[in-house]
Amino acid sequence: MTDYETLSLEVDPDGVATLTLNRPDALNAFDLTMARELERFFLTDARDDAVRAVVVTGAGRAFCAGMDLSAEGNVFGLDETLSPTPEELRAHLDEAPWHDGVRDTGGRVTLAIHALPKPVIAAINGAAVGIGATMTLAMDLRLASTRARIGFVFGRLGIVPEAASSWFLPRIVGIQQALEWVYSADVLDAQAAYDGRLVRSLHEPDDLLPAARELARSFVVDRSPVALGLAKRLLYRNSAAAEPLEAHLSDSLAMFWTSLGDGKEGVAAFREKRAPRFTGRAADLPRIFPG
Amino acid sequence: MTDYETLSLEVDPDGVATLTLNRPDALNAFDLTMARELERFFLTDARDDAVRAVVVTGAGRAFCAGMDLSAEGNVFGLDETLSPTPEELRAHLDEAPWHDGVRDTGGRVTLAIHALPKPVIAAINGAAVGIGATMTLAMDLRLASTRARIGFVFGRLGIVPEAASSWFLPRIVGIQQALEWVYSADVLDAQAAYDGRLVRSLHEPDDLLPAARELARSFVVDRSPVALGLAKRLLYRNSAAAEPLEAHLSDSLAMFWTSLGDGKEGVAAFREKRAPRFTGRAADLPRIFPG
Amino acid sequence: MTDYETLSLEVDPDGVATLTLNRPDALNAFDLTMARELERFFLTDARDDAVRAVVVTGAGRAFCAGMDLSAEGNVFGLDETLSPTPEELRAHLDEAPWHDGVRDTGGRVTLAIHALPKPVIAAINGAAVGIGATMTLAMDLRLASTRARIGFVFGRLGIVPEAASSWFLPRIVGIQQALEWVYSADVLDAQAAYDGRLVRSLHEPDDLLPAARELARSFVVDRSPVALGLAKRLLYRNSAAAEPLEAHLSDSLAMFWTSLGDGKEGVAAFREKRAPRFTGRAADLPRIFPG
Repeated sequence: MTDYETLSLEVDPDGVATLTLNRPDALNAFDLTMARELERFFLTDARDDAVRAVVVTGAGRAFCAGMDLSAEGNVFGLDETLSPTPEELRAHLDEAPWHDGVRDTGGRVTLAIHALPKPVIAAINGAAVGIGATMTLAMDLRLASTRARIGFVFGRLGIVPEAASSWFLPRIVGIQQALEWVYSADVLDAQAAYDGRLVRSLHEPDDLLPAARELARSFVVDRSPVALGLAKRLLYRNSAAAEPLEAHLSDSLAMFWTSLGDGKEGVAAFREKRAPRFTGRAADLPRIFPG
Repeated sequence: MTDYETLSLEVDPDGVATLTLNRPDALNAFDLTMARELERFFLTDARDDAVRAVVVTGAGRAFCAGMDLSAEGNVFGLDETLSPTPEELRAHLDEAPWHDGVRDTGGRVTLAIHALPKPVIAAINGAAVGIGATMTLAMDLRLASTRARIGFVFGRLGIVPEAASSWFLPRIVGIQQALEWVYSADVLDAQAAYDGRLVRSLHEPDDLLPAARELARSFVVDRSPVALGLAKRLLYRNSAAAEPLEAHLSDSLAMFWTSLGDGKEGVAAFREKRAPRFTGRAADLPRIFPG
Repeated sequence: MTDYETLSLEVDPDGVATLTLNRPDALNAFDLTMARELERFFLTDARDDAVRAVVVTGAGRAFCAGMDLSAEGNVFGLDETLSPTPEELRAHLDEAPWHDGVRDTGGRVTLAIHALPKPVIAAINGAAVGIGATMTLAMDLRLASTRARIGFVFGRLGIVPEAASSWFLPRIVGIQQALEWVYSADVLDAQAAYDGRLVRSLHEPDDLLPAARELARSFVVDRSPVALGLAKRLLYRNSAAAEPLEAHLSDSLAMFWTSLGDGKEGVAAFREKRAPRFTGRAADLPRIFPG
């Protein structure tokens, strides 16, 4: 699980994985190899029980300088012979979900990040631009170095904010701030990103990675992976549900499931004033949403 | 309407009701009796015209210390012989909405709070933990004492955030803050809850209840109960609508209704520079959403 | 395109239009003529390629003092002989979208503002009350003079917040703040509106309009109108989508479209370190959402 070309991975004994975007000579620019490896990591490798939470950072002075525009041809990986309608894309997705050439590459990565039922933390150590910025939106929390620079610069290139960022960004910073950053297409300094509530906390450069790992550790030690994974699904899905009744149905099922499993141990440990010994696995979550 | 075992109720002449969680020896811990009484209050008793707004607080030094884990057996009130799927729960709900044993008890209470078309204010006087925290999310505004402590501690017990909190919490504090608090499962002090925008304002302990009542009073004196009730429904429902057109349809109907009722009096009073005498009743709201 | 009774319009060479609500003797109160002219401007006139962004402000000391209550009869423009159900209104809308007498006048205007695929900035120079407040919510950003006063005063008049404000307001300021302002029905001073995140920035009265125009200019100079227009649609629509997958489908199509158009020029200009020469037109956006 560590045979990556563009990434490096470390997993500590508590289950905190540190995934490093590792093309420092190219400022960790995002290319199709990195896209495929990120997808593989979040869809497959990170599902291993040994991984309890993930911290993502960049090697060297950048986090990720964006799409690698030095590549030849269509850098977006799109197939110019196609021209799908919304209906065709939807149908197509049902039939051939990994077809290249129609689906935005960044979005394939952010959907994979989003689908992992474990905490994911961005440790933004330097420049995070374009897909380097939008990929962090699908992570649950963003910590940044005081040297971080974050830019939703799509407008300057004549393209749109991608990677499902139009779903994530307004949920994180509100619609007014999201519109301004996308319209301006400016690169924000760390303080502006913090003031706008994109970033959860600022850190001196040397303190960033330890802080991110410590936070990740606090999420998983003596916690139930099942409870955490279901909580992540509940919060994202129900933040977009039409009515609180939807949340009530899904959290009733999740509560039912956990109360007969890790919840029994959790309540027993609480009553006995000892640390719990949870045995549930994030790889084995029940279905709590219809369809 | 005051024969409660676990609650006490006071209604002042302006229609501001103060509902007190009243098991101070148990830090107002939530048990099945309290659940039933809260449901009854919000679904039935609080619909009385004499009640114009509700302030909820706790007796003694806590607001509500959470589910009463001192009870025997399955403290969540779930029936371990059942194992519903999402589809079965949905179907079940249509057929037998008050069946115990499948539906999360806290969610039954928060849906009842949410459904009351009148302002509801939490006056968080002390510890609010677990269901003690999540029940406040369905209230419209949260005021807190500087001694308040608020904890979404589910992760430590191996269970999930319940009571439809995954619908409410991200709407109040944003998805990033919601995820952090749920992952950390820590008990927040009053300042952290305020800084994270969960709590609207902080107050010295002795000032909390007067401030909450004064705020409630400012919402109802010389106001139309119909306009307030419809406004509450519009804001919650349309905050989750797919498009502004949905809001336009429902607010057109609400405006139509009020403009022929209390709105006529409101405009007349405005023109005549006098206080309005509204006659509409919150018990008689029109249907403004389809279905 | 400048033959308005209640508005005045100026368009500068960069495409920044300044639209002024121009009934200063009536504090720019909103009447049916102004409603029709605002609809016409946003649905038709502002779609001209010469307009790249719009700044909206008020003539004299007010922004817009609300519905003109000095008019005779039903000031809301509603037909009292009608009494539609939610289903009838929806069906009616499909058949006769501009029928007067059922649809809230303010909502017709805000839907028109919302539908313009160009940045719209409110420069709130003074009192913005009732529809004067809610019309700014459909604008993308709100700048305000330190003399601005903003009031969601509907509750005092016995009517509801209209103009689809129940869709916009919680997305801008969160549900707790939205409920408080609507329940209180108070007029907020500029600082309170800023602290509550309704307003993006405060300005000395004389600096407001220059700042708004400068911001608008920064959004459009050397930017692709197609990329901007699609970004606006993506952010609003997907902020309300059920899942990030919806955003991925629509932004994939938008990225596809732009990458074969203005994106080619944008990437080429970036590689050649020169300003881009975009040729796409906001009048010619592709369909990126189903249905």
